[in-house]
Amino acid sequence: SGLVHIKNPYLDSMEEDVLYHLDLGTKTHNLLAMFGDIKFVCVGGSPNRMRAFAQFMHKELGLMGDGEDLADICAGTDRYAMYWAGPVLSISHGMGIPSISIMLHELIKLLHHAKCRDVTIIRIGTSGGLGIEAGSVVITDMAVDSSFKPRFEQVVLDDVVVRSTELDEDLAEELLACSKEIPDFCTLIGHTMCTYDFYEGQGRLDGALCSFSSEKKLEYLKRAYDAGVRNIEMESTAFAALCGLCGLKGESSCSRLR
Amino acid sequence: SGLVHIKNPYLDSMEEDVLYHLDLGTKTHNLLAMFGDIKFVCVGGSPNRMRAFAQFMHKELGLMGDGEDLADICAGTDRYAMYWAGPVLSISHGMGIPSISIMLHELIKLLHHAKCRDVTIIRIGTSGGLGIEAGSVVITDMAVDSSFKPRFEQVVLDDVVVRSTELDEDLAEELLACSKEIPDFCTLIGHTMCTYDFYEGQGRLDGALCSFSSEKKLEYLKRAYDAGVRNIEMESTAFAALCGLCGLKGESSCSRLR
Repeated sequence: SGLVHIKNPYLDSMEEDVLYHLDLGTKTHNLLAMFGDIKFVCVGGSPNRMRAFAQFMHKELGLMGDGEDLADICAGTDRYAMYWAGPVLSISHGMGIPSISIMLHELIKLLHHAKCRDVTIIRIGTSGGLGIEAGSVVITDMAVDSSFKPRFEQVVLDDVVVRSTELDEDLAEELLACSKEIPDFCTLIGHTMCTYDFYEGQGRLDGALCSFSSEKKLEYLKRAYDAGVRNIEMESTAFAALCGLCGLKGESSCSRLR
Repeated sequence: SGLVHIKNPYLDSMEEDVLYHLDLGTKTHNLLAMFGDIKFVCVGGSPNRMRAFAQFMHKELGLMGDGEDLADICAGTDRYAMYWAGPVLSISHGMGIPSISIMLHELIKLLHHAKCRDVTIIRIGTSGGLGIEAGSVVITDMAVDSSFKPRFEQVVLDDVVVRSTELDEDLAEELLACSKEIPDFCTLIGHTMCTYDFYEGQGRLDGALCSFSSEKKLEYLKRAYDAGVRNIEMESTAFAALCGLCGLKGESSCSRLR
């Protein structure tokens, strides 16, 4: 049917669904009228960047009106920011798995209430590159954890549930094909490693704590590279797991910071 | 000495330390002049709330100038927001352990570079209460994980390191004593449970995914209550572990959302 899959037997019998962190709700907003036409959702960490992306899309799509003056749909909260550009929704998710998870739960429910069909979701964040040129874009074929395994361990109450982190293979190839149309744009397909920590978890030597040697760091990053990892960030496993479970065609493509 | 403990042998030999997510650095800013007088740091998830808190402190401390017009010290980035109110620094940390960890690493290095002494850090966020009245404030005596254990599992490269999550007991008692001076202010000391997920991790029945029954949820929350948990949030174990390791006198006191 192309609709998102909500896997919660309680949801449709609830009198009201408040999407608390988005400052939206089924009683306060006509979600079908507001979001029914959405076909693409792009997500990234920073609210300013997601605003700039919506402005860019507004211009690219030749939409009417002043793209410079886009209103934040979630203006009533400062947890996330959300902008429209025609059929494209641009949303920030903050940093890390817990932060993107809250946003994705509420976004997926939003797409469900709005009866959206065949939605494609793409994470377009920043990442640290591994053995690739600065400015390169990595299209993720597989999100892996800090042991290079394609899995996401979700704690449900006090049980640990292991979820798959596969992403849409056709979409990855399609994005790669698009990138080839743009000259001097370095794009590759590779595994993306997702960590819970930026400093100690990604082998940085400049955090407040650092208990490993430079050699140990390099040895770890080499092992990651040999396992197919081409970039490191902090959201992709949760993103892949949630999108996969809810039937959203998802891709993650992050640029290495220059 | 009262100084923070940086446990990183590389840091002091670095030519420059860029506190990237705070948009501050040792070459671009005179951190000693800017932050040398800081004695208290208050942190919470939302940038707007931390701005409002700085304005409140500005007024309470009878500081000169218009507290309404406080400038964001981290205005060059939208990752975090930071405000001064005399000796008090008010900083947002976003949602979840990864997000607060990045901020704390850079904050601790900031306090180190500024040679701050005897700094007290208090998390003043929101939380879900467990068997307590709405609006109550829980002062955390112990941050526990989803198995009710006082520990924080930190992944360092691909090793898991277990860290203690003890908080400052005297500070907790001092805060409790302060609260007693304010009439009709319900404050208690209890354990705070920290989860990686808001929906499935905290037993919510209204996420995009929900695989447990209402009974299973209640049974889990009852076990948490019996283990001494009085509120649930998403940052306290990492906060307690990092502050403890770096010699910062830390406390977490969260109000239950009304």
